Amino acid sequence: MAIRYELIKECKQTGARLGRLHTPHGVIETPIFMPVGTQATVKAMTPEELKDMAAQIILSNTYHLYLRPGHELVKEAGGLHKFMNWDRPILTDSGGFQVFSLGDLRKISEEGVEFQSHLDGSRHFLSPERVMEIETALGADIIMAFDECAPYPADYDYVKKSMERTTRWAKRCKDSFENTENQALFGIVQGGMFRDLREQSAKELVELDFPGYSIGGLSVGESKDLMYEVLDYTTPLLPKNKPRYLMGVGSPDALIEGVIRGVDMFDCVLPTRIARNGTAMTSEGRIAIKNAKYTRDFTPLDPNCTCYTCKNYTRAYLRHLYKADEILSSRLMSTHNLYFLIHLMKQVREAIMEDRLMDFRNEFFAKYYGETLL
Amino acid sequence: MAIRYELIKECKQTGARLGRLHTPHGVIETPIFMPVGTQATVKAMTPEELKDMAAQIILSNTYHLYLRPGHELVKEAGGLHKFMNWDRPILTDSGGFQVFSLGDLRKISEEGVEFQSHLDGSRHFLSPERVMEIETALGADIIMAFDECAPYPADYDYVKKSMERTTRWAKRCKDSFENTENQALFGIVQGGMFRDLREQSAKELVELDFPGYSIGGLSVGESKDLMYEVLDYTTPLLPKNKPRYLMGVGSPDALIEGVIRGVDMFDCVLPTRIARNGTAMTSEGRIAIKNAKYTRDFTPLDPNCTCYTCKNYTRAYLRHLYKADEILSSRLMSTHNLYFLIHLMKQVREAIMEDRLMDFRNEFFAKYYGETLL
Repeated sequence: MAIRYELIKECKQTGARLGRLHTPHGVIETPIFMPVGTQATVKAMTPEELKDMAAQIILSNTYHLYLRPGHELVKEAGGLHKFMNWDRPILTDSGGFQVFSLGDLRKISEEGVEFQSHLDGSRHFLSPERVMEIETALGADIIMAFDECAPYPADYDYVKKSMERTTRWAKRCKDSFENTENQALFGIVQGGMFRDLREQSAKELVELDFPGYSIGGLSVGESKDLMYEVLDYTTPLLPKNKPRYLMGVGSPDALIEGVIRGVDMFDCVLPTRIARNGTAMTSEGRIAIKNAKYTRDFTPLDPNCTCYTCKNYTRAYLRHLYKADEILSSRLMSTHNLYFLIHLMKQVREAIMEDRLMDFRNEFFAKYYGETLL
Repeated sequence: MAIRYELIKECKQTGARLGRLHTPHGVIETPIFMPVGTQATVKAMTPEELKDMAAQIILSNTYHLYLRPGHELVKEAGGLHKFMNWDRPILTDSGGFQVFSLGDLRKISEEGVEFQSHLDGSRHFLSPERVMEIETALGADIIMAFDECAPYPADYDYVKKSMERTTRWAKRCKDSFENTENQALFGIVQGGMFRDLREQSAKELVELDFPGYSIGGLSVGESKDLMYEVLDYTTPLLPKNKPRYLMGVGSPDALIEGVIRGVDMFDCVLPTRIARNGTAMTSEGRIAIKNAKYTRDFTPLDPNCTCYTCKNYTRAYLRHLYKADEILSSRLMSTHNLYFLIHLMKQVREAIMEDRLMDFRNEFFAKYYGETLL
């Protein structure tokens, strides 16, 4: 087995779990937020900077790497770790989400998905077997089965058919995937916002005995309350001795609420994307650095933060860099936002350990969102 | 006096000098290449990265900082060093070059230059006295007098009038500049490609007794041979106990030829600009990383280089980052090119010390340019 999940402690107040995930490239403390490196680079960052902020695992995207530079090239380079100079764990998604997001540019059949590249319009075909081939070539520690992420809203029949095909594809992935000693294949629970479909999906996937499970099809446009409701009934269906990964979630409230509902792993482009747009997550909520009120603000982005950016630069300087369209703006803002989420999850782990997760949640929310979410 | 130039050794074969420039923020070994941080940031780089590659002094641009974020704001921030988190020496240009480059957007009089901002069209007036005010507020260790950089080609009468006004402006700068204990004001020798005008300019500026001298109006479109010819007769006119700075020059051949002709300091945006366009300077000449032949090239950018980029990444990965328009591409390529020039100047200093500068020049040129420049 490529990975092993070690359950350290269950929260007394909530469904939260403290754990350790042992992988071929090291041990990950969970719950964890995983920075996203779509094209074999976490945008604007070096691997050393990610390590300095205690990033333990990063995610990369199969769809993008398959199209450019190509998985065969990455394999020739010695695999994704070596190609991008990152020696800690990596997780690759399956490309399913990206392919299905192509809309008119893709056609689904039982066999797989035919689609056109968003880069050059060239035609491609991805099947569960082909995706396993690609993810094996990339060589991430944790890889995802090829799934369909149903849109939201979608009617019951569509979601049911899609979920059942995703389960059949999960089985085909498992049957064709051979590199089980070095890589762990996760199944992805689908079923939209329908409880019985989530139950069916979870049950059938658990029978296939994957080393870990993702929860897909959330954070796709539904309300956060609905997402939490789905998590409420979905995570208890998953085995306690396996890690649970909620895909595409990265806002501080959703991370904490996800942990409370028993999720161990999260990923999202949110921190780096809003950073490049000049928005910082701080202990007192989001701030848009271009705001005129920061023109002569010679205090750090977040007075309670100890990241490289907050230790060395002022809001006035960050605003100047952003207005002047300087690359250093993206760097310093991304550094801060990633540190913020990674550090948030560290605090969450400490709170679980000390049986005060709900107190931590309430204090954090009061400062970050004001009273609105309490 | 804010600075002191210490002449360590004169080359036996050429006009090259080995020296040390003592400034309020530390000692600079000369000859030196200065990375350019136009808008209070060397594009794509942090101060720590510049220190790691042994950058000893950087340049920043008065025109740009005056317009954005404004010199008063920088002063409020505690000066440019503190604003941008750089505690080593800084040199600011005078804004003359940028203002005169505005063409139809500026009008010159004896009093100064009226111009429109390239950012928002707002109207401004810069005079020698005003520029001293601005450069004092920015607080660089070395500052430039406000000059006119005559275009090339230009007729004798225009260049003569322009040079004589530049000299009068240099005197006005000197007369109005008060912060001489903390900042060193350089005079700028002009005179285009005319020997008698260069002689007149140098003579009159030397009489004004500046702590250092720049050579302006070169690298403006003339051939390199013509530039070297102007240097041949200009540098000997400057005092041996003062530093000499050739503005806007950064190609490896021009750096070495400039040193041979007695220049101590150079600056140019070339290494960072071409880096962002995917071009690297290597010990075997320039390479364009987008070239298809690097697709599966798993060797470093420059096999003879020990910079961060060359120690950790392959040409194939760098090509991928460039094609994918990733910020890390600009970072890694800029890191390499800056290191390349800084390291080149270190080798030049060693060659002067060991009386083998011409041998070094010939060997370097043979590898970098092939036989063409020998």
